[in-house]
Amino acid sequence: MIVLNPMVLEMKGQIDLEIHRLVAHPLLEEYPGLGEMLRFHFGWDGEGNGPDALGKRIRPLIVLLSCTAVGGNWNHALPAATGVELLHNFSLIHDDIEDGSPLRHGRATLWNKWGQALAINAGDALFTLAYAAIFDLNQTISPGAAQEAIRIFNETCIRLTGGQHLDIAFERERSISEGKYWQMIGGKTAALLSACARLGALIGGAPESQIEFFGNFGTKLGLSFQVQDDWLGLWGNLAETGKSSESDLVTGKKTLPVVFALEKNSSFAKRWRQGPILSHEVSELSHLLIEEGAQAYTEGQATRLTREALEALEMATGGSRSGAALKELAETLLKRSR
Amino acid sequence: MIVLNPMVLEMKGQIDLEIHRLVAHPLLEEYPGLGEMLRFHFGWDGEGNGPDALGKRIRPLIVLLSCTAVGGNWNHALPAATGVELLHNFSLIHDDIEDGSPLRHGRATLWNKWGQALAINAGDALFTLAYAAIFDLNQTISPGAAQEAIRIFNETCIRLTGGQHLDIAFERERSISEGKYWQMIGGKTAALLSACARLGALIGGAPESQIEFFGNFGTKLGLSFQVQDDWLGLWGNLAETGKSSESDLVTGKKTLPVVFALEKNSSFAKRWRQGPILSHEVSELSHLLIEEGAQAYTEGQATRLTREALEALEMATGGSRSGAALKELAETLLKRSR
Repeated sequence: MIVLNPMVLEMKGQIDLEIHRLVAHPLLEEYPGLGEMLRFHFGWDGEGNGPDALGKRIRPLIVLLSCTAVGGNWNHALPAATGVELLHNFSLIHDDIEDGSPLRHGRATLWNKWGQALAINAGDALFTLAYAAIFDLNQTISPGAAQEAIRIFNETCIRLTGGQHLDIAFERERSISEGKYWQMIGGKTAALLSACARLGALIGGAPESQIEFFGNFGTKLGLSFQVQDDWLGLWGNLAETGKSSESDLVTGKKTLPVVFALEKNSSFAKRWRQGPILSHEVSELSHLLIEEGAQAYTEGQATRLTREALEALEMATGGSRSGAALKELAETLLKRSR
Repeated sequence: MIVLNPMVLEMKGQIDLEIHRLVAHPLLEEYPGLGEMLRFHFGWDGEGNGPDALGKRIRPLIVLLSCTAVGGNWNHALPAATGVELLHNFSLIHDDIEDGSPLRHGRATLWNKWGQALAINAGDALFTLAYAAIFDLNQTISPGAAQEAIRIFNETCIRLTGGQHLDIAFERERSISEGKYWQMIGGKTAALLSACARLGALIGGAPESQIEFFGNFGTKLGLSFQVQDDWLGLWGNLAETGKSSESDLVTGKKTLPVVFALEKNSSFAKRWRQGPILSHEVSELSHLLIEEGAQAYTEGQATRLTREALEALEMATGGSRSGAALKELAETLLKRSR
């Protein structure tokens, strides 16, 4: 198990220290209510705080392990690792508002507890701290490399908001092509994972061509992850994910199983075209999707993308020992709750 | 009039070109709906677009005029000017959601036209573009100065979200002290104007002590501006501001006139304590505030802060000719619609 790897444990410890340091930013101390919201979000304070409420730190670990995989010193990459984790958490806060999700990891989301207005603003504060984190690269690497890393980070933010825009806008469209689906999840999920791998390799001193292989690995990993998330959103167990499994169908979200069924123009598609899905129909419709082959198709795509991710990693690391921990992390990520 | 100054006209032209360039970011082109929202927000497209819908570019002009006031080349400060204008506009998009404001400059706000989810996300995209803009300082000034400017920018974002947090949180409190009021507007309004003046002076090559004077000027200017905005929110004319003048009382916002009256524990305060103000009471209550001295007090504070802002500017520029345009801009800003 990846979590028993002593280097990974040390990395996680350092990432958490950095996140704590940034959330305790001296300027934030002047506005105590805001810091309280962020500490609640991170699972450190409030109802249901504790180990189960903490994130898995997958994205920052990809940064640090990509750095070590190319022979770099992961301590130099810590500001980037912290930045991507804060960015990810900012996006969770805003996504939960945008999707109207009342729970995350089985705990109240910020908007559910404090209202939308304060939650939007707390997300903005965290977005700012993400930038504060990545700017610290100026202390650990050369100015040129720091500028390039910050440029990657900034472009990733644009892709994130672009993908999220499509995700929300598509809810209102009757159907979308599978091509549009891949564009959407490429932005909302894969862009950040790709950036994590690229940032780690860049900071570790890898040449341009190798950085690109790392980016490929992150992209495929992200796509595979999102396809599995779509699977879990329909057929996963509420207790395992901490998220309601009916909301994706009810909100009209364009997940891969739905996009597949709509393109086939099946019985599911006929019902879908009649108007919004109601809660009591969710169970029947998710079974209908299985009968119509949407589950098998989704699993096939996840399997393909997982294979491609691992092949890209092989290309990125040349199969060297140093990439083993990264491979293990990717495999853990792609085997969750199935 | 400041707008007839040829240098200021050229500055505005360059600022607008830069904003257009950033909103046309190649990555955003991949998500056309998002760019459409931003172009609508800036008043370039959609219902009611045109000269009246454009912003006045006050903040970026403060950056550029502070730069020239210390003898700097304002072209070097353009990335910072663009960054603060995009940051200001990002905050307008989110503030309008947080305050539930349906109109701005007499036009629909983004959430009103596209819904909250897409509007939150469009604000996030603009926040990202603000950072993309300020990073371009690496192309115009030394790495050390660019890092310092980006640090100021980032800290300002934290203060902005801190002040906004207090603004929203205070709506739910029965009353707040005047001290808390100044802390709130110090974050939500004055921090950005202070940063504008400091950034301009820093990029223009001013020594530390002079940069601080510029910061003081911006802070006082911002406080004075917000106090006047509070005045306009209660007694201003809907047609002049493009904003409904009743919402501040109805939402329970802690504006200076209200804070003053609540501390006096007058008839207004008694009514306030009985529960939310209803629309039909707004006219009577705003007259009651005048009778109880809240209007005179607010005007007195605005006058004091305006004087202090102009004194700080005198200190910052040593009364030199080069500061004249900045003084004119400040005076224009502080004399609007009264």
